[in-house]
Amino acid sequence: MSRLGPRIAVCGAAEADAFSYEQARQVGRLLAQAGAVLLCGGRGGVMEAACRGAKEAGGLTIGILPGPFRGDANPYVDVAIATDMGQARNAVIVRTADSVIAVGGEYGTLTEIAMALKMGKRVVALNSWRIQREGRFDERIIYARDAQEALRIALEE
Amino acid sequence: MSRLGPRIAVCGAAEADAFSYEQARQVGRLLAQAGAVLLCGGRGGVMEAACRGAKEAGGLTIGILPGPFRGDANPYVDVAIATDMGQARNAVIVRTADSVIAVGGEYGTLTEIAMALKMGKRVVALNSWRIQREGRFDERIIYARDAQEALRIALEE
Amino acid sequence: MSRLGPRIAVCGAAEADAFSYEQARQVGRLLAQAGAVLLCGGRGGVMEAACRGAKEAGGLTIGILPGPFRGDANPYVDVAIATDMGQARNAVIVRTADSVIAVGGEYGTLTEIAMALKMGKRVVALNSWRIQREGRFDERIIYARDAQEALRIALEE
Amino acid sequence: MSRLGPRIAVCGAAEADAFSYEQARQVGRLLAQAGAVLLCGGRGGVMEAACRGAKEAGGLTIGILPGPFRGDANPYVDVAIATDMGQARNAVIVRTADSVIAVGGEYGTLTEIAMALKMGKRVVALNSWRIQREGRFDERIIYARDAQEALRIALEE
Repeated sequence: MSRLGPRIAVCGAAEADAFSYEQARQVGRLLAQAGAVLLCGGRGGVMEAACRGAKEAGGLTIGILPGPFRGDANPYVDVAIATDMGQARNAVIVRTADSVIAVGGEYGTLTEIAMALKMGKRVVALNSWRIQREGRFDERIIYARDAQEALRIALEE
Repeated sequence: MSRLGPRIAVCGAAEADAFSYEQARQVGRLLAQAGAVLLCGGRGGVMEAACRGAKEAGGLTIGILPGPFRGDANPYVDVAIATDMGQARNAVIVRTADSVIAVGGEYGTLTEIAMALKMGKRVVALNSWRIQREGRFDERIIYARDAQEALRIALEE
Repeated sequence: MSRLGPRIAVCGAAEADAFSYEQARQVGRLLAQAGAVLLCGGRGGVMEAACRGAKEAGGLTIGILPGPFRGDANPYVDVAIATDMGQARNAVIVRTADSVIAVGGEYGTLTEIAMALKMGKRVVALNSWRIQREGRFDERIIYARDAQEALRIALEE
Repeated sequence: MSRLGPRIAVCGAAEADAFSYEQARQVGRLLAQAGAVLLCGGRGGVMEAACRGAKEAGGLTIGILPGPFRGDANPYVDVAIATDMGQARNAVIVRTADSVIAVGGEYGTLTEIAMALKMGKRVVALNSWRIQREGRFDERIIYARDAQEALRIALEE
């Protein structure tokens, strides 16, 4: 295997509605077409959709699981890592990523957004959280209109 | 030592302005007066202020440090835990807490707020983040006007 | 609370025979009498026995748990830390300790002995593992005959 | 990428003498030839040698790093995971592996052997630790004479 491309984490809830699922799948597909490697939490919903899209485009998918069993990964994960560290595994996903794309998302996704900002990684959001302090929205999160734009921003030098 | 009181995590940045420092110190003081045990990240700023306040009122303070050395705790920490797990240690603080009070805060604080919401713990905020999705502010975070109110809410059954 | 004493980790299996239980209890008692703070994995068997002994002598006990619930600590733990990090929590116990006393022990105890040696901490063993490479027993582990000797060695400057 | 083969962790010190280096390299080569995926700690010495051998045979290599930077992996790692969790990352390597081959080894290797035994994984040793309790050597560790035998045992159903 030649040197692999950039690592992009796709973060989102383990249960996804049809719209988020398709959006994440498209993100995964575009990401693999661009030669990037997909990082995620390895489970269902948005994570599964992104892995599925990446595999449809022949990409490599990595799932960093919260539990102790590699077999709990969704069927589109190539490389499953069993951390047995619960929510602390989110720190590992973000540490390992070059940038993070948040798709929709629940509180777990917010954890990953916050960690990525804390660690100085680029964060692109699709229908995800907005965060505000002292009456002003944070400008570090970059909001994309669609999967194409999200990918373009995530992969920019 | 008899059975200890509830564990309240006080989360906030390692650098604090004078206002946040005094507010966190007051939270720590009230918390100890109420018989609660202070949990925090063990470092400076808001964490130090809360520990200092708690010690002024004779409380017990626990600091869950990101690095490998117990000696890096602020001087008001009684029980320092050296995790050497970086930001992943935030998950341990929140897991161990009965509820979380966020004071001001930077991205690290947002991580702890998000993890607490994910884990189903009560979150009280003092001049801290507001989070919004689909145009609506999250109603799980409870905003307090001052240290007294924050404590009252954090300790409610 | 004034400055606390040295932190001594007592490591051993979650199920203990009567002999190991009494030995660990005595270690805990002597440790507390010497003003040290007991660190352990927070569960049953040797861990419970050491905590029980420490409480009988008025000491402070800290339990670093593998699971997500503070309530899973044995009844003699004062300060329970819920890591939800499974076996990785052994690294936290050892990092936080000044020295380690291994009592009997199964494979988990061997993990803690190995980590302590790796981290350069003093290791005292009571009826515990001997380790050998290239036909020679390791001389870094110090074997004590009884609880008194174990404590004396663990607390030496 | 089709379904990947079994995951075999190769554990050993970050500094290796010429003999251990060549032995680990051969283990990596045979492992990749057998279609297995190499898991390791991602650093130098035995870890580098195993990755190098695996790449020489066209295999896939995964490095679970202790620090925060993916770039600290040795040049033969395909998929680097940056845990920033220090020695606790050893638990992740072992959890993710189907079986473990220990090559030579220092205390860190002993940690991985112990964790693998604790987690019920098969452990094969090449010039590595022997462990003894109550005067008897542990029979769970399987000692191999050379890389071929180690691989054969590690991959047995």
